[in-house]
Amino acid sequence: MGDLIGQSTGGKLYFIPQDEFLNLKNSNLNAIQKTAIFAYMCRINSLYMIARAGSGHIGSSFSSMEIMSWLELNELSSLKSPEDGKLRNIFFSSKGHDAPGLYSIWLAQNKLDFDLIHQLRRLNGLPGHPDILTPNVVTNTGSLGMGISKAKGMIRANRIKGIISNVYVLTGDGELQEGQIWESLFSAANDNLNELIVIIDHNKLQSDTLVSKVSDLGDLESKFKSFGWDVHRCNGNNVEDFSSALGRAKEVANQPKVIIADTIKGKGVTFMEHTSIDSDVDYYKFHSGAPNEELYTRALNELVLSVNNFRKNNGLNAVQLSEVKRPSTIKIENQERLVQAYSEALLEHARVNKNIVVLDADLILDTGLIPFKEEFPDRFIECGIAEQDMVSQAGGIALMGMLPVVHSFSCFLSSRPNEQIYNNATERSKIIYVGSLAGIVPAGPGHSHQAVRDISSLSGIPGLIMIEPSNEMEVKLLFNWAVNINLESTYIRLVSVPVIPGYTLPVDYIPKLGEGVSLNSGKDGVIIASGPIMLSLALKAANYLNENYNKSVRVVNMPWLNVVNSEWLVNELSEIPVWLSLDNHYRIGGQGDRIADVILSSHLRPTYHRMAIEEIPVSGSLEEVLEHHKFTLDKIVQILNFSR
Amino acid sequence: MGDLIGQSTGGKLYFIPQDEFLNLKNSNLNAIQKTAIFAYMCRINSLYMIARAGSGHIGSSFSSMEIMSWLELNELSSLKSPEDGKLRNIFFSSKGHDAPGLYSIWLAQNKLDFDLIHQLRRLNGLPGHPDILTPNVVTNTGSLGMGISKAKGMIRANRIKGIISNVYVLTGDGELQEGQIWESLFSAANDNLNELIVIIDHNKLQSDTLVSKVSDLGDLESKFKSFGWDVHRCNGNNVEDFSSALGRAKEVANQPKVIIADTIKGKGVTFMEHTSIDSDVDYYKFHSGAPNEELYTRALNELVLSVNNFRKNNGLNAVQLSEVKRPSTIKIENQERLVQAYSEALLEHARVNKNIVVLDADLILDTGLIPFKEEFPDRFIECGIAEQDMVSQAGGIALMGMLPVVHSFSCFLSSRPNEQIYNNATERSKIIYVGSLAGIVPAGPGHSHQAVRDISSLSGIPGLIMIEPSNEMEVKLLFNWAVNINLESTYIRLVSVPVIPGYTLPVDYIPKLGEGVSLNSGKDGVIIASGPIMLSLALKAANYLNENYNKSVRVVNMPWLNVVNSEWLVNELSEIPVWLSLDNHYRIGGQGDRIADVILSSHLRPTYHRMAIEEIPVSGSLEEVLEHHKFTLDKIVQILNFSR
Repeated sequence: MGDLIGQSTGGKLYFIPQDEFLNLKNSNLNAIQKTAIFAYMCRINSLYMIARAGSGHIGSSFSSMEIMSWLELNELSSLKSPEDGKLRNIFFSSKGHDAPGLYSIWLAQNKLDFDLIHQLRRLNGLPGHPDILTPNVVTNTGSLGMGISKAKGMIRANRIKGIISNVYVLTGDGELQEGQIWESLFSAANDNLNELIVIIDHNKLQSDTLVSKVSDLGDLESKFKSFGWDVHRCNGNNVEDFSSALGRAKEVANQPKVIIADTIKGKGVTFMEHTSIDSDVDYYKFHSGAPNEELYTRALNELVLSVNNFRKNNGLNAVQLSEVKRPSTIKIENQERLVQAYSEALLEHARVNKNIVVLDADLILDTGLIPFKEEFPDRFIECGIAEQDMVSQAGGIALMGMLPVVHSFSCFLSSRPNEQIYNNATERSKIIYVGSLAGIVPAGPGHSHQAVRDISSLSGIPGLIMIEPSNEMEVKLLFNWAVNINLESTYIRLVSVPVIPGYTLPVDYIPKLGEGVSLNSGKDGVIIASGPIMLSLALKAANYLNENYNKSVRVVNMPWLNVVNSEWLVNELSEIPVWLSLDNHYRIGGQGDRIADVILSSHLRPTYHRMAIEEIPVSGSLEEVLEHHKFTLDKIVQILNFSR
Repeated sequence: MGDLIGQSTGGKLYFIPQDEFLNLKNSNLNAIQKTAIFAYMCRINSLYMIARAGSGHIGSSFSSMEIMSWLELNELSSLKSPEDGKLRNIFFSSKGHDAPGLYSIWLAQNKLDFDLIHQLRRLNGLPGHPDILTPNVVTNTGSLGMGISKAKGMIRANRIKGIISNVYVLTGDGELQEGQIWESLFSAANDNLNELIVIIDHNKLQSDTLVSKVSDLGDLESKFKSFGWDVHRCNGNNVEDFSSALGRAKEVANQPKVIIADTIKGKGVTFMEHTSIDSDVDYYKFHSGAPNEELYTRALNELVLSVNNFRKNNGLNAVQLSEVKRPSTIKIENQERLVQAYSEALLEHARVNKNIVVLDADLILDTGLIPFKEEFPDRFIECGIAEQDMVSQAGGIALMGMLPVVHSFSCFLSSRPNEQIYNNATERSKIIYVGSLAGIVPAGPGHSHQAVRDISSLSGIPGLIMIEPSNEMEVKLLFNWAVNINLESTYIRLVSVPVIPGYTLPVDYIPKLGEGVSLNSGKDGVIIASGPIMLSLALKAANYLNENYNKSVRVVNMPWLNVVNSEWLVNELSEIPVWLSLDNHYRIGGQGDRIADVILSSHLRPTYHRMAIEEIPVSGSLEEVLEHHKFTLDKIVQILNFSR
């Protein structure tokens, strides 16, 4: 699930134009030869897309390329739609990380406008994870573990309509740690869903490192057999071997089938393959991060050499690459990194507080836990991609008097173990939840990863205070509050993109429950928000209004997401006639709801405006997406509607 | 999970007083004989508690009685606490349904005040599912599948502290359909958690009927072995066999252990045992429902006969029973049943709309789906206790153009598959979710089953309209709206307790998105609420205020939980100076938040009060719990604060 935020690489970038794929298609090679060369050519285009985007899941795009290419070229393309009464097979990836790989295949096949090759993770382009608004995408994935269930639903609907067609689902191997996978196996076997063919891209690596080191899967074949499935195994990077396993599987009647396809993560580029993390201390660097300029060039050269050798051996010419000047990126100095600050704060407290136990769900890199794990290996629990299990384990730990600190991306942590978090809260034990990647940006990964309903999903839970720090200093203050002051549980919402807040907090600032802190002075209006993305926008707007409208607008940093101290609010803001709440969240259930509740419970009756996310967030660059969702200076000025 | 709402049985009730247990303890019998007799005696007291409460999980209390008795009498009672540095073993039930059984054991052992035997499911008594506020309860259970994870957390905390002690977890068999169970198995094996001993109460029946008919578990032994667990099997109703299996398991080092204990649901009472549902069309009646007077007497007689035969064979006298006049219950006529009305509406629509596909998670009785299943077996999908799988299957069905209607209790449906519901919504497909058992009552089962944060958990999701019907008529109108009018997805929140609303809706009432409907007229104040529990209370208050204060208070039925039409609100209520929102839900995220949001977005500035649930709800009778949480006429009068 990890999504490190990368930067575009320098220099030039290269891709293979579509006519080269047409030439391949028209060659006299057999299906296996064509697919093998096709897959290697697509790797070059995936690499291009990810390098250009600055992030993207290169490792699993590469590991699954032969599988996806074979399915696309040989299993799906010639089939008719159900409207014709003919068979139509369906393929989708449950992990969804391999979207760049799949896009590269569709681009090559002319199933997507080829210009989209330049638009990975851009607005109106190709989202970081699959979305059905993109042509050919069958279902939205990116949150793990849902694919087999969805396929079962498709098959059941087909059966009711009298249609018998295969559904091919690609899963990850780390993804198999999700309980829903196993939950979904029972009825597939009981109901003899033989149209279901699951292919495990068994590349041995998950977000952080080796699956065997994170949460070993044990004997996969015997597990699937014990659930009543028909099991096959093959080399998933060898087209002949894979296609032959698929052929055998398709002959089996009355059982769902699984093909465990042994693959190599990063396959095709030596230093991206998992041989590159043989060391026990290494983490894998190419799960979702883009290569830098030097590594891009090395990877490209290796792939081009392989492709052309392959082609030459099959009597084809070398491919002609198209060259593009890479988009320039500006190196930004002095950015604050909240996750990094959190990582340091955690370590400081853990040195003093021996009760702190840290739990992670395969995001040790992204949630800043490596230093903790290295210093306190005995108090670090790697749970794998198993958020429900992680949260209930934390519940058990808390009941024994220790202080569990639970980590994942906020989108997952607030929703997958939603009932487990509530169950823990009903025990009145103390747990700290830390959800990073909070809010609408980064928007490259798409809506599965954009945590914009995390507040609403949990804010009703009694005894769970939700907070969002606005800068590195406040991360440390609020974590201290959660550890040493708050007697109940805390949910810390962390923005993961590097930020330049453009403000500082008072040196003597001490967080007080439900009370905000003003970042400037002002009496004509007030903007209330939390977190650096919205607060820095608010401050820019305040400055603009000051300069252009001669209005003084106060900006209040309100780190408390589900509790507002009414007395403080009345004392602090009663004289200000116009208020604006800025939510890095859907309107419903955002902080603005809590402020409205307190306003109406008091005697205050200000003009109260809100800006929040009103629709499912789009994927794109930070700037594009904030603009699209109208988080702009112009919009604030328009809403506040001051006369000049 | 099912919790049918029963009635106390008539006539007299009988229980075994505590001294009889003391006598048994002081007898010369060996541990196995004592335990066997003890368990049978406890069955009589469980039966008493459940008959008196009018509901309770009798089937699994009986099936697990020998297991829990053996653990209590022989494995746990003599052990020291961790503060002494000595071993302290822990036992808890993950399913939690067997709470009456466990309470009866603790009462017999003098570990609970014996007077609590009369207080099952009553305020300040013994909740329907375990809660740590009750002495001896280790952890809160009742939502299924969390137990193994929690036990792992306890063991990990112990290990960090250098304590090695066993944790015994009792699970159901239907419970094994939950994905979290399998998710939790991996790391227990990888980390050699040999302190973990899981006992499966394999009584072959889940809430509705036979596990094999709901979602067959297949070869359980091979499943657990394939996950790296040490597996044992025994007769769980035979004390000698169980204790011997437990002994063998405890000798195995370096592996978590599972004991598959074959038991009989309802064991000890012939007509409650699962031989009673041999027929293919039968559903099991004693999962959570209390026996009526006749069946109570038959059950008691059978148990007393068994106990005394048992005792006689071991040289003990017959037990002396204490007799209690059963609390009288009033038979209420003319109640409306929303789930029943829903059941009929579903059937009517399904006859016309061939696209409707129904999904259930082992609550076919409680969610009113039996008529649908009987008439449309091909469009009925029983998913078992697998809510995540169910919701994602619905997603797949919707993508194929059919209309899935998804069912569970609202507490579970809104939280366990929370991320899956959002994922479906991001596909803009149309799905209907129906969450019954909504709101704070019935409160007998306790907070795991009281859905009072279901609105907040889901209301932020774009394209998901949440509605709550107020009576049988509105159930039908709103279901029609969801099927035929709404283009997007709908969540229907259904109160399950029978109600006498005390109001009718206009004959020509047509639900309009975001618009409420007035149940009376009034200009001095307005109470806005949804659902029959709050609306009937509101109407009573309005009548009282009219009679005693000469104030006319309007009551508005507002079935739209997460959308309020601003224009309607302004037109309809702008003249009314005092408003009260009544939420059958936590304050945060309830309907009152949406109304506040619209008020502040308009020019209206009424006095706005709110009544909602402010703390984790208590367990008890309907009247007790509404009173405890201050949903009373007095409180409304006090809040509205009219002068006479």
